[in-house]
Amino acid sequence: MTDTSPKVTTGPLPASRRVWHAGTRHPDIRVPMREIDLHPSSGERPVIVYDSSGPYTDPDCAISIEAGLPRLRENWIAARNDTEQYPGRHIRPEDNGFAEGSRLTPEFPVRHEPRRATGGGAVTQIAYARAGIVTPEMEYVAIRENLGRQQAKAALKRDGESFGAETPDFITPEFVRAELARGRAIIPSNINHPEAEPMAIGRNFLVKINANIGNSAVTSSMAEEVEKMVWATRWGADTVMDLSTGRNIHNIRDWIIRNSPVPIGTVPLYQALEKVGGIAEDLNWTVFRDTLIEQAEQGVDYFTIHAGVRLHMIPMTVSRVTGIVSRGGSIMAKWCLHHHRESFLYEHFDEICDIARAYDVSFSLGDGLRPGSIADANDQAQFAELETLGELTQIAWAKDCQVMIEGPGHVPMHKIKENMDKQLAICGEAPFYTLGPLTTDIAPGYDHITSGIGAAMIGWFGTAMLCYVTPKEHLGLPDRDDVKTGVITYKIAAHAADLAKGHPAARIRDDALSRARFEFRWEDQFNLSLDPETARSMHDETLPKEAHKVAHFCSMCGPKFCSMRISHDIRAEAQKEGMAKMAEKFREGGELYVPMEDAR
Amino acid sequence: MTDTSPKVTTGPLPASRRVWHAGTRHPDIRVPMREIDLHPSSGERPVIVYDSSGPYTDPDCAISIEAGLPRLRENWIAARNDTEQYPGRHIRPEDNGFAEGSRLTPEFPVRHEPRRATGGGAVTQIAYARAGIVTPEMEYVAIRENLGRQQAKAALKRDGESFGAETPDFITPEFVRAELARGRAIIPSNINHPEAEPMAIGRNFLVKINANIGNSAVTSSMAEEVEKMVWATRWGADTVMDLSTGRNIHNIRDWIIRNSPVPIGTVPLYQALEKVGGIAEDLNWTVFRDTLIEQAEQGVDYFTIHAGVRLHMIPMTVSRVTGIVSRGGSIMAKWCLHHHRESFLYEHFDEICDIARAYDVSFSLGDGLRPGSIADANDQAQFAELETLGELTQIAWAKDCQVMIEGPGHVPMHKIKENMDKQLAICGEAPFYTLGPLTTDIAPGYDHITSGIGAAMIGWFGTAMLCYVTPKEHLGLPDRDDVKTGVITYKIAAHAADLAKGHPAARIRDDALSRARFEFRWEDQFNLSLDPETARSMHDETLPKEAHKVAHFCSMCGPKFCSMRISHDIRAEAQKEGMAKMAEKFREGGELYVPMEDAR
Repeated sequence: MTDTSPKVTTGPLPASRRVWHAGTRHPDIRVPMREIDLHPSSGERPVIVYDSSGPYTDPDCAISIEAGLPRLRENWIAARNDTEQYPGRHIRPEDNGFAEGSRLTPEFPVRHEPRRATGGGAVTQIAYARAGIVTPEMEYVAIRENLGRQQAKAALKRDGESFGAETPDFITPEFVRAELARGRAIIPSNINHPEAEPMAIGRNFLVKINANIGNSAVTSSMAEEVEKMVWATRWGADTVMDLSTGRNIHNIRDWIIRNSPVPIGTVPLYQALEKVGGIAEDLNWTVFRDTLIEQAEQGVDYFTIHAGVRLHMIPMTVSRVTGIVSRGGSIMAKWCLHHHRESFLYEHFDEICDIARAYDVSFSLGDGLRPGSIADANDQAQFAELETLGELTQIAWAKDCQVMIEGPGHVPMHKIKENMDKQLAICGEAPFYTLGPLTTDIAPGYDHITSGIGAAMIGWFGTAMLCYVTPKEHLGLPDRDDVKTGVITYKIAAHAADLAKGHPAARIRDDALSRARFEFRWEDQFNLSLDPETARSMHDETLPKEAHKVAHFCSMCGPKFCSMRISHDIRAEAQKEGMAKMAEKFREGGELYVPMEDAR
Repeated sequence: MTDTSPKVTTGPLPASRRVWHAGTRHPDIRVPMREIDLHPSSGERPVIVYDSSGPYTDPDCAISIEAGLPRLRENWIAARNDTEQYPGRHIRPEDNGFAEGSRLTPEFPVRHEPRRATGGGAVTQIAYARAGIVTPEMEYVAIRENLGRQQAKAALKRDGESFGAETPDFITPEFVRAELARGRAIIPSNINHPEAEPMAIGRNFLVKINANIGNSAVTSSMAEEVEKMVWATRWGADTVMDLSTGRNIHNIRDWIIRNSPVPIGTVPLYQALEKVGGIAEDLNWTVFRDTLIEQAEQGVDYFTIHAGVRLHMIPMTVSRVTGIVSRGGSIMAKWCLHHHRESFLYEHFDEICDIARAYDVSFSLGDGLRPGSIADANDQAQFAELETLGELTQIAWAKDCQVMIEGPGHVPMHKIKENMDKQLAICGEAPFYTLGPLTTDIAPGYDHITSGIGAAMIGWFGTAMLCYVTPKEHLGLPDRDDVKTGVITYKIAAHAADLAKGHPAARIRDDALSRARFEFRWEDQFNLSLDPETARSMHDETLPKEAHKVAHFCSMCGPKFCSMRISHDIRAEAQKEGMAKMAEKFREGGELYVPMEDAR
């Protein structure tokens, strides 16, 4: 049975090693990075890049999907002495949509007793930050964000337009603490997901990306979803959302979380709806609360909560071209309308916060009324909801909960910045987490691109995390190839945003790759790229031989027309002539050179 | 032999018909558009979209590659009585790189005697425009740009940030004339390429895209290149540049031009270099001039001329990370440095203009010093060259030549707008024609995306034509699949730019597709998309049955979670309740609804 022994992709990326940087305040922490080795002829140090792939790319690490990943943070959490283990909720048939027999995905083989806060306390990173405590998670994040750039100090250049973001030259643990304390960043880190490697989402850190996975009633299995998670993080996903909506939701999620090196987000409403047989009107606080506890005990790191969809906003969507396109938003709108009342999410938001703070589940306040078409962008419904999300942010912060805010959607380029500006103002600089936005509706099959444009722009303007969109958006569930395409596209968008913001370390990789390109170090060019396999295979389509890997041309132009080769000739000639002196003479102008005609 | 009977892709796109709109001033002109039929249940008119595909998508038009396309403009040109036919230049062995026997691409079977201006006159569209003449080409373009939007008058909404672009609600022939006269737009239309359907490049028209094709010394054949041209225009390329650099350049170009419904651009320097055996230093005005005449007689519609690369600028490139990356730029820099003098392109620019005005070859003033990496963006060399391009623009305009200006390259997002602003100021609003720009260097294999981001942005800011970049950029010559990916990506960028600029007709297609999406008209959604085949096949991967084409869900969410379906329920429920009345009550607030707790 494939479901019981899932296969995942392991092994390092080309020329890459997983290396560790140790902590100072917390000497036992080891922060992973990826070093990409360059050809000795370059005379350059390895390039350090952010590594979200977890132990899967480490050949020294034995991977057992049935056992799950090592529980990295378990001792850190226990050492804080503010939590207790307890038996936890029992799995019920409805947790897996009443799947039975061969249709039931097996339970994850290892059960860890869940942990929760004692005495009604907040065990959240924001609570510690406000108390002045620098947790191991905070130092971990500080080291991780620096990408060893102390070594590259001389090469750092601050060149960008940050629109108010304030990334310092070097990230200190204290800086991380301060950002968390004022709610400008979060570290999604459920105490029941100690396998995850801490990461930060905030405007003053590297722009992050999220990959959505998950089965639906129509397609896919646990093994496929676990591999999609591993695959997505291999290519750079910083968090993964499990948006499963079919049967077996509980058990699939367990397999994913126990094996995930990155934070896992969910939309608990989806599972709650399964529990009431798919009838939105039958949802209620009891079943929703039960689902939150269930998922918090499993270790979900952030919950999308669509508490911003309020009764009076629903009429605002009625004349839209595409109505309500958020699944969560439409479910809650239907509930509100049917019962003619405010949603239980809004009314019970205080209690939701009490659950979140007991496990350190971060909130991703859902934008249930986001526009689903260019026509509906930045409309009254969308911004009315954003105001409510701003109120909810204050409530969550008062409860010491970590919060980020979800954003659109479909937005033409000229309306993107308004989204960012309003979000910052209304939500007190809580991190923004946007889906794209898609900048046109006319390219289904290419919505990674229509949205990659918007994602790069809104990332530049200040969005902290970009939720990927795959080529299958609007058409079907992404398969493994679509996941990779989505992740690479969004790594491009996030990196382009870091460059434009003037992040102090962003250009290191660009410059190293460009030098490799200029010096015809083809292997280095492949290895430094976001997708070495694709770069190499495209090159090899026309020039497959080993000798071509050092050739001073490619099949684009052939040898005679290679501008880079000619540039080298120019440089050599210039040096021979004493370029500086020559340049001076040229600038003087005058009769230094005889006119063309006379020379013939 | 494959070379002698090339196969090209023909037939309409799904649900599409090629239709014609007749002229008023020139009643004999018939301007093609594509109408996409919608399902009768929509109650909507067909959607009209711009059609660059030429007769190939018209099932009523017999295609013979050996005969070439009908010579649409032949009578218009002859009727102006300002040109003469003459024997023209004879093909020489060096025109085809001395290819012989089976290595020689056969000559195009039909020879048309070339035409040139009589009496040293200018037979350019700008000359006619300045003389107050509205040519058939100008009326053709006016009709084409309007996309039949007189019919959709009521639906037009002006919503955008145009950064100074001034597209009127409706394009009149007089508006086209005025734009041409002041140099703000061009209609590339060599009198020896009467097969081409007139199109405009200018900031106040729809944003256009160019596809590069062409063989290199390493790869590809004539048949492949002709099909790439047809294929590129099928998916939306507005012009095609033939950048061939290997043997057979002359003959391949003939096959391409005689069969091309769009303007063809070239870089004459490439062929000139072939004629001197690939030795840049051996280039001279005589061989270059000969090449210009050769290509002008064949019908090349625009020439890239790298006359902006000047001697004193070369030292400015020496400390760059990637030197000079433009092929033409590096060739000219090498020439200048070797001879220690200004380039023959710069010195003879006046004479080049004399040739251009005799055939109406437009200029695309090349940016030979464009940056090839993020590190080199917006540097001294790049902007020094731009100043010279501004001077050359004035010279060309004084000679009644049509001009556009080429732009970068590799530019991080925060430096893109400066390129546009400087270009507009320095080059007197002559159309800008940019390559991307690529917003990061780290994704070879995905440079259609790194550059699509920059292209959308610079298109929004005012760039008139976007030169595509394919996934193979930096790695090899694009094949047919890469050409399609590049074209679709750039159609997305151009359309996103039109939307953001607030082009009066841009949203028609987005809104029609979004309505189709909301109403589960899957077939309409596919047919309205830029790539119906890909959209359909992605949908069919999971839901292949015919019944699913009307299903009120897809495999993304399955039926229970379909937000669109739920939205319809909400709308129905809302209408039942009298939404307006309800909304009013909600806004009043107060005790209208009992609190949640009391209801339980």
